[in-house]
Amino acid sequence: MSIEKVNIEQKFSLFNDIWNPRIVGELNGQYVKLGRFKGDFIWHKHDNEDEMFLVTKGSFKMELRDKTLMINEGDFIIIPKGVEHRPVAETEAEVMLFEPATTLNTGDKRDALTKDKLERI
Amino acid sequence: MSIEKVNIEQKFSLFNDIWNPRIVGELNGQYVKLGRFKGDFIWHKHDNEDEMFLVTKGSFKMELRDKTLMINEGDFIIIPKGVEHRPVAETEAEVMLFEPATTLNTGDKRDALTKDKLERI
Repeated sequence: MSIEKVNIEQKFSLFNDIWNPRIVGELNGQYVKLGRFKGDFIWHKHDNEDEMFLVTKGSFKMELRDKTLMINEGDFIIIPKGVEHRPVAETEAEVMLFEPATTLNTGDKRDALTKDKLERI
Repeated sequence: MSIEKVNIEQKFSLFNDIWNPRIVGELNGQYVKLGRFKGDFIWHKHDNEDEMFLVTKGSFKMELRDKTLMINEGDFIIIPKGVEHRPVAETEAEVMLFEPATTLNTGDKRDALTKDKLERI
C-alpha cells in the first residue's frame, strides 16, 4: 500500500455540491470525510455513533435542543451518540467529519438529504 | 453532559512542551490529541492502531522506510498499523492526532520520549 499525504483544500476543489460529504481517509473503522455545508440540514441523531465536526473554512451553527453553538474555522465539536442536532450554515462552510464508517448522514431520519452511498475522492 | 466546542489554537496556548500530546476530545474509542513536534522523534510502529496526523500550523517530515513526505499546514497523513515511521520537525509544528485510546506515542518502542499517561486539557 502506498502511503500518501492528503491536502484538504485540494480535495475540496474536486466538488462543489452541498450536504454531500466525500470520504478522504479511513482509519480504525472510522471515516474522514469532507463536506460543504450551506443552509439548513435536518434534525437527527445517530444512535450508535459519536460524530466530530472540524471547520476548515467558514463557520456554521450547531443547533442542539438546549442551545446553539457557533463553530468557526479552527473549532471542532463532538456530538455524542443519541444527541439530536442540526447543522445550519448561513454562508458556505467547509467541514471535516470523523465518524464510524457505519454512519448515515441523516442518522435516524430519511429525507431528500439522505446519502446512502458516499464517494471516495 | 454539556456539549461544548473546542478551539484548537486556544488549546495549544495551554502548553509549550514538545512530543507530549494532550487529549482534547474522545469519540468512538478514539482520542483527538494535540501535539507540538520539534526535532527528531524515534522510529516506531503501532501494531494495532492506524494513526492520523493533521497539521494545523507549520510543517513536519514524515519519514517512512521507503520515502519521506513533507506534511504541511492543511495536510494530513494516515499511517496504517504496522508501518514504521518517524516524524521529524525542523521547526516547531502543531499537529492534531486521531488514534485509538490505546495508542502509545512511541508504539512498539520504549524511550525517554515515551508518555504512558497523557493529560486531558
